[in-house]
Amino acid sequence: MSSVLSGNLGRVLCIITGASRGFGRTVAREMSVLVKPGSVLVLTARSGNELRTLQTELTESEAGMAGLRVETVVADMAQMEGLQNVVRTSEEAFGEGIDHLMLINNAASLGDVSRCVTSFTNMAEVDSYLSLNVSSSLCLTARVLQAFPQRPGLRRTVVNVTSLCALQPFRSWVLYCTGKAAREMMFKVLAEEEPDIRVLNYSPGPLDTAMQVEARTNTADPSIRKSFVDMFDQGQLLTCEASCAKLMKLLLEDNYTSGAHIDVYDV
Amino acid sequence: MSSVLSGNLGRVLCIITGASRGFGRTVAREMSVLVKPGSVLVLTARSGNELRTLQTELTESEAGMAGLRVETVVADMAQMEGLQNVVRTSEEAFGEGIDHLMLINNAASLGDVSRCVTSFTNMAEVDSYLSLNVSSSLCLTARVLQAFPQRPGLRRTVVNVTSLCALQPFRSWVLYCTGKAAREMMFKVLAEEEPDIRVLNYSPGPLDTAMQVEARTNTADPSIRKSFVDMFDQGQLLTCEASCAKLMKLLLEDNYTSGAHIDVYDV
Repeated sequence: MSSVLSGNLGRVLCIITGASRGFGRTVAREMSVLVKPGSVLVLTARSGNELRTLQTELTESEAGMAGLRVETVVADMAQMEGLQNVVRTSEEAFGEGIDHLMLINNAASLGDVSRCVTSFTNMAEVDSYLSLNVSSSLCLTARVLQAFPQRPGLRRTVVNVTSLCALQPFRSWVLYCTGKAAREMMFKVLAEEEPDIRVLNYSPGPLDTAMQVEARTNTADPSIRKSFVDMFDQGQLLTCEASCAKLMKLLLEDNYTSGAHIDVYDV
Repeated sequence: MSSVLSGNLGRVLCIITGASRGFGRTVAREMSVLVKPGSVLVLTARSGNELRTLQTELTESEAGMAGLRVETVVADMAQMEGLQNVVRTSEEAFGEGIDHLMLINNAASLGDVSRCVTSFTNMAEVDSYLSLNVSSSLCLTARVLQAFPQRPGLRRTVVNVTSLCALQPFRSWVLYCTGKAAREMMFKVLAEEEPDIRVLNYSPGPLDTAMQVEARTNTADPSIRKSFVDMFDQGQLLTCEASCAKLMKLLLEDNYTSGAHIDVYDV
């Protein structure tokens, strides 16, 4: 897909959360071929094995041979220590020639979609969901931007992987919708506050990933569940590669409105 | 204000959070004159003194004399025990003739508006804000709706006191905007899931309350802060009474779209 894209993103330090599989892994792969030699990918996820497999793949790829550095941080983004490790690794990896800092806030969980709003009586469950999906994203972004402040010659781009669920309510998806709405608003505030930072809320569309399997298997509401099954049956799910190519197009062209919600189908 | 409104809300059990002052206290007062004798108000807040003063006022009012019952629960909505106490008190107070269950999710905090997104590096601070402003509201609503399930002859209405900040980002208001966006989405999902429940996201406008004092004193962004100062200086802040009258009009007419965001200026 990326072969049709022209240009490059510069000599980049790019942090990608949730990079071990699904959309995050594809972003890491596509990014690797769109950055200049001397760039660094900092990949983080909870699963160490998958992350190291990806690291090996990218290090042995053409980009890796040409001088792309790939760092991995096995970390739980719901823990302060996890965020600190990502930032420390990024600081250590930041070399002289880096001219573009990128942070791809991709990590997210679906939450329990097998239940409806009236079943969420346990605050600890909701707190934990919001901590992983909202607080960690805010605090990681804040830490990364503090660690790499505005300076001449450094572009800064922050991507939030959002969803139609940030805009539209779906039955039995209360945690996911609430978390995505919260997170998107957070990045809109960031865009307002920091005009020098490019902020993109990218909605990748219905992807053929493990999360979609969970969605069409567990969604409590029968008609919502059926719509997921139908999308799958009718081949309407997007591959991570197809959606990621649109994200890369947006990042390369770099003329989106900072803070805007941009859907894959609008690119 | 309420004298211009006609009709009544029925024989109500109405739970109001954050009832000790500001908009919540006004809602309690206005509600007291729009419900039938035999109704119950369950008022909750962290501050016991103000809550008891309000209880005395309402109990000694004309409505109180005519048979309005006023219960108070001094509770921290960020604690599970607080939610449980509110539900238990409501269950005990629910009498035979009650035909309308109402829950007014009003309690909220502004968060620290003296800082920008990049300063929010501490997950515990963000977690705690989201717990009080999002999780507690979801879990209280779930518990109340479980305690008072759908049955013939019982109307159920859930109000979320929302804000323009749920729709629009404001510099230095990241916690508030994020929390309000999250909460509003949550109630939109509820409205989708439970067509028999009337769900209203009511945005009361810029109110002349302690929260506004905090906003115009502490807001970090100079132009946003100035806009609050200007609104105050130019007499553009609304009284709680004026805004609450619009809310009561919406509740009495009862023809809003369930789940919709309705702004005071649109009523």
